[in-house]
Amino acid sequence: MAKASPARKTRTKKALLIGVDFGGTNIVAAVVDPEGALIAKAKIPAEISRGVDHTIGNLKRSIREAADRARISLKDVMAIGLGSPGPLNSRAGIVINPPNLTGWRNIPLRTLIEEEFHLPVVLDNDANAAAFGEFWAGAGLSARKAGKGAQTLVCFTLGTGVGGGIIIDGALLRGPDDTGGELGHCTIDYDGYPCKCGNRGCLETYVSATGIVRRTREAIEQGEKTILFEMVNGDLDRLTSKLVHEALLKGDSLAARIIHETGVLLGVGIANVVNTLNPDIVVISGGVIEAGEHLFAPAREEVRKRAFDCPARRAQIVPALLGDDAGCIGAAGIALDALKGQP
Amino acid sequence: MAKASPARKTRTKKALLIGVDFGGTNIVAAVVDPEGALIAKAKIPAEISRGVDHTIGNLKRSIREAADRARISLKDVMAIGLGSPGPLNSRAGIVINPPNLTGWRNIPLRTLIEEEFHLPVVLDNDANAAAFGEFWAGAGLSARKAGKGAQTLVCFTLGTGVGGGIIIDGALLRGPDDTGGELGHCTIDYDGYPCKCGNRGCLETYVSATGIVRRTREAIEQGEKTILFEMVNGDLDRLTSKLVHEALLKGDSLAARIIHETGVLLGVGIANVVNTLNPDIVVISGGVIEAGEHLFAPAREEVRKRAFDCPARRAQIVPALLGDDAGCIGAAGIALDALKGQP
Repeated sequence: MAKASPARKTRTKKALLIGVDFGGTNIVAAVVDPEGALIAKAKIPAEISRGVDHTIGNLKRSIREAADRARISLKDVMAIGLGSPGPLNSRAGIVINPPNLTGWRNIPLRTLIEEEFHLPVVLDNDANAAAFGEFWAGAGLSARKAGKGAQTLVCFTLGTGVGGGIIIDGALLRGPDDTGGELGHCTIDYDGYPCKCGNRGCLETYVSATGIVRRTREAIEQGEKTILFEMVNGDLDRLTSKLVHEALLKGDSLAARIIHETGVLLGVGIANVVNTLNPDIVVISGGVIEAGEHLFAPAREEVRKRAFDCPARRAQIVPALLGDDAGCIGAAGIALDALKGQP
Repeated sequence: MAKASPARKTRTKKALLIGVDFGGTNIVAAVVDPEGALIAKAKIPAEISRGVDHTIGNLKRSIREAADRARISLKDVMAIGLGSPGPLNSRAGIVINPPNLTGWRNIPLRTLIEEEFHLPVVLDNDANAAAFGEFWAGAGLSARKAGKGAQTLVCFTLGTGVGGGIIIDGALLRGPDDTGGELGHCTIDYDGYPCKCGNRGCLETYVSATGIVRRTREAIEQGEKTILFEMVNGDLDRLTSKLVHEALLKGDSLAARIIHETGVLLGVGIANVVNTLNPDIVVISGGVIEAGEHLFAPAREEVRKRAFDCPARRAQIVPALLGDDAGCIGAAGIALDALKGQP
């Protein structure tokens, strides 16, 4: 092979990525190396209420600030990845009309950022970015280092709602409308609790933070004894899933039962993806994973009971490792993936 | 471009495929052209009770008979595809231990057929073969001819059980253990009817032929009036889903309600794959599709009610077109796919 030309040398200096986790409240931009290590990040308010142009300005500013904090020039950056709320069109780079981005309608975000920084930009949805982060540099990387397969990965994020991301043979399952992976809105009880999506019995209505609070509140209203009642001074509107976790740590039996049931019901949702997708690894993220084995043991037990033996034995059910950084690291990973194929 | 050499001419003569649908009762082998048209087929009994070697002999014989009926030489065949009951290992070409193939245990079926015919052979599971048949030459082809997308396709086969197959961007989702696509064993009611797989509330327990018969029988035992009672001379053990269909055609109200409910419950299962996989097309196969709009209208309505608007609008929910030939045509398609990439 011929020696690298000077032009090629210049290109190989461009070794870094910037990943942006664009949310309804904050924008987090991070400089990430090609192995998925976060070098520096900047977090600034999205300020959605101040209008689309203002928020896009903030987004550009977050990218510059992240580069400053990492003490790099944007000339060292190969590509930028943007993780945004959906619905969006990843092929066209357009943010369509996300419910939590008031005023946004068909914004060509990818082009706007490309024109600003003269760099390749990719746009994907936030749940996909978080799943890809765990695949590339979190729980998936950890499994691969341990000699275990992690090419097919499913990620459930338990927050206010339940988000999902699916990676098949190393590639994100986006679907033609970028709506693949809506795991929170799979029915686990066709006649079950109404979900805000219009469906009934969605996994999200049971195992999201909102679902945990609802089930706890219902139990208290039915007269179950719990220290949570004192913890909120009798005001059940102040219940949060974080308080349920605190009560669990204090040995509260209602909190223990609620978290156990959350694990069981999450296990139903996991068993469904184990039977349909035969994943190597199922990653659970969100604050509730702090409950550890109180959550994971019943979830794993339920999967063993419900799914076929062979795929159930395969699927490692593990906590996410990147926490809130999964989104920006994953967005950077998706950008790298777009540049050079699967990482 | 240079003129084709004589060697190349010889190779281009090898333009056909053989696909085999290997079942617990019968073996169907078909000669299929590279566009997915069935040229001729041979059906012979599998005779599982006579032992593994005997059945493998029958399988080889079915391949020769199909070639004879098509009046071709095996020299005209590019490759052979085998669709077999699972569990199996498609990468190693081994049939592991299917419940309905008594005595079969880790049989290297691919190698045995390759050595017999000196042709490339691929092995995949029967539900995948049927799904791929519909993708390549059935409902998927029809959608593509109509200018509609059909690169991501999900197939539900409603028989004694409910089988499934998933094709993402033109490629079968097999999973590392070849257990991907077990759509019949997704929970739609976590506290529902016990399934023979050990789980509760599997889609299969409601919408399989067995599930249709069970629900009909339960309704009759609870005193519902129906002509089915006379049709079986009061012997409810003689109920079949075919009889339920006949009663439907005769205007029986119980049969109409059972088929309507089957559509609704099938719609729950379809909505789950619509939300998770964002398919272009969902194909339903099996005898029950003869009920036509009695089944499809409530299924489509339920998907509209349960799934997100955008993927629900995308997903065409259509009957299979290949009937019992889907398995052998699809096995041939998988063989072609293995030779030259996606069809």
